[in-house]
Amino acid sequence: MSDRIHNFSAGPATLPVELLEKAQSEFLNYGGAGMALMEMSHRSKEFISVIESAESDVRELLNISDDYAVLFLQGGASLQFSMVPQNLFVSGKPVLAVNTGSWTKKAIKEMKREGDVAIIGSSDDRNFSYIPKIEASEYQKEGSFVYIASNNTIFGTQWESFPDTASPLVADMSSDILSRPFDINKFGLVFAGAQKNLGPSGVTLVIIRKDLAERASENLPTMMQYRTHIDGKSLYNTPPTFGIYMIGLMLQWIKSKGGLSGIESLNNEKAALLYDAIDSSDFYYNPTQKDSRSLMNVVFRVSGDNEELEALFVKEATAAGLSGLKGHRSVGGLRASIYNSQRKESVQALVDFMQKFELEHKNEAVSQSQRTA
Amino acid sequence: MSDRIHNFSAGPATLPVELLEKAQSEFLNYGGAGMALMEMSHRSKEFISVIESAESDVRELLNISDDYAVLFLQGGASLQFSMVPQNLFVSGKPVLAVNTGSWTKKAIKEMKREGDVAIIGSSDDRNFSYIPKIEASEYQKEGSFVYIASNNTIFGTQWESFPDTASPLVADMSSDILSRPFDINKFGLVFAGAQKNLGPSGVTLVIIRKDLAERASENLPTMMQYRTHIDGKSLYNTPPTFGIYMIGLMLQWIKSKGGLSGIESLNNEKAALLYDAIDSSDFYYNPTQKDSRSLMNVVFRVSGDNEELEALFVKEATAAGLSGLKGHRSVGGLRASIYNSQRKESVQALVDFMQKFELEHKNEAVSQSQRTA
Repeated sequence: MSDRIHNFSAGPATLPVELLEKAQSEFLNYGGAGMALMEMSHRSKEFISVIESAESDVRELLNISDDYAVLFLQGGASLQFSMVPQNLFVSGKPVLAVNTGSWTKKAIKEMKREGDVAIIGSSDDRNFSYIPKIEASEYQKEGSFVYIASNNTIFGTQWESFPDTASPLVADMSSDILSRPFDINKFGLVFAGAQKNLGPSGVTLVIIRKDLAERASENLPTMMQYRTHIDGKSLYNTPPTFGIYMIGLMLQWIKSKGGLSGIESLNNEKAALLYDAIDSSDFYYNPTQKDSRSLMNVVFRVSGDNEELEALFVKEATAAGLSGLKGHRSVGGLRASIYNSQRKESVQALVDFMQKFELEHKNEAVSQSQRTA
Repeated sequence: MSDRIHNFSAGPATLPVELLEKAQSEFLNYGGAGMALMEMSHRSKEFISVIESAESDVRELLNISDDYAVLFLQGGASLQFSMVPQNLFVSGKPVLAVNTGSWTKKAIKEMKREGDVAIIGSSDDRNFSYIPKIEASEYQKEGSFVYIASNNTIFGTQWESFPDTASPLVADMSSDILSRPFDINKFGLVFAGAQKNLGPSGVTLVIIRKDLAERASENLPTMMQYRTHIDGKSLYNTPPTFGIYMIGLMLQWIKSKGGLSGIESLNNEKAALLYDAIDSSDFYYNPTQKDSRSLMNVVFRVSGDNEELEALFVKEATAAGLSGLKGHRSVGGLRASIYNSQRKESVQALVDFMQKFELEHKNEAVSQSQRTA
């Protein structure tokens, strides 16, 4: 598709073109049924097959045992910020939370509505530019659960590995789910909005150890109880059928790339290409601590935090067919989101553009950084 | 599209083929942007234009003033069963509910978790085959709000007109929203899952009088407060962008049919065609009270409630390219859902099939009904 541009949006994000083409080709007539998938009953044999295959592919990719349920829900990570504590709080035991940026702050705010939250680690002392190293004993404290976000889209940081915890570990994996292998058995619950690594917006993947769903009061709204969706196999009410179908295609695509190890290699290559370009330049810099760098969201700045040049960068990049490079409005700067579906060619095109832009504007950046010094 | 079958599914349901074709044609490259709509940031100018147009079209079709907010949420009607009482309950004042079938029963169950519910009318004495006539004084009682479902998919009944109420009238309009004109000013809140009359599953349309959103406690989860979504213009978190786009196409399609009066005429014609075929036959009958018949979901049975013949009807209809005619699993029988998008040709094809089936099986039905008599 020669008219495809390079899309670095933080989410909803780029998808593999071959997946979009497949969805387009069967958009009106799914599997020869004489109707579109989105026109089918969610209890039709065609859709049941779609959702069962999607569940089974998630299980295969992450090697998930029957102790866990795999759910496709609605409401995004933002609704999970409340569902998790409503279901998992144990009376008298605080949530042990690690605060690594805007999304954990939002989650902590919602969790505090439901019970006590103890912050066992935070990187807000240095503008969330790193993942805090926390004493192992902190993770062994008695709590309802330990809460983390595995990747931080806005600040461009990511957990390299996951701690051993005494209480169930819960992770918001919205921005790095299925981008690398991890041991699901370390977790009590993992959730992820689909719109970064899994497909279109409107579906939330939840993987939950089934016994934890029994902690919830029967007085919770039926829709807010995980057990409702476990019992109903994500079909208690009408699910977002087309979104789940697209996720199913994405899961097959990930498998075709060699599963999570294959995807991880591709993601490592893309991130290395971009971080190397940044590190080898005096014009750009990456504000995060090296051991905490995200492989999904690469944030960078023009030296001297030259906002004028950054705005020009975004403008000229857009004109050159590279979109979505503006940093999050809360932090400014530049950001390239390079999730599972991002092509290496697009990352290379960005690196080429960065070098060209640097050549053209090198002197301005220096003079600006001297001005502000 | 000669390979399209006749789809009578109760939801997700058939959509206009020209709408699907349009979505297919711009599936990979929306508006020449070089990416799919589902790959775009929900804060992109393209998507903002999509959601603003959708809101403005809903406002135009229903003549909605600025006193109301029009929201596109997630979670379906089932989540509204809890959001409505969590936001609208006033201490000490019960919900005044009218019970007309499975969906109001589910809503009442959820509302009771949040406060008192007084049933001011019910049709459960005759298997929900009618909409109860209730004394005007009942609607004038003091309550938090009055709760109804305007159309009942399972039992095939529909409110012909809406009562004047002292407290705000709240309606689940999942199965007849935008199928006919109505005065939004009679209502405090209206909600509808999209997958019947509006588009694909995964989006919930909510129309709420803004002052009512202020009843909610600030302690409610942020995502469960209507005011969050009013303030955020449905963009507090990432919305189901592709679903909202499809609803936008559907709204334009409704406008192209002459708006709600035009759609109502078409819906009346289709329903009349089918009810006339049922009424003029001794082989089929409609179990609902005439003044309560739904124009959206036409339930019918073979005389003598001959389940064997009904099963054969579904089987042969499916083979003849008429799908989704089985009644809801909780009540049995037959059901044709003929929402906004249903074509008159499909209803005619169903009537033709019904007459052919009657001719072929007339004697069996009679003997069966004699057996059971």
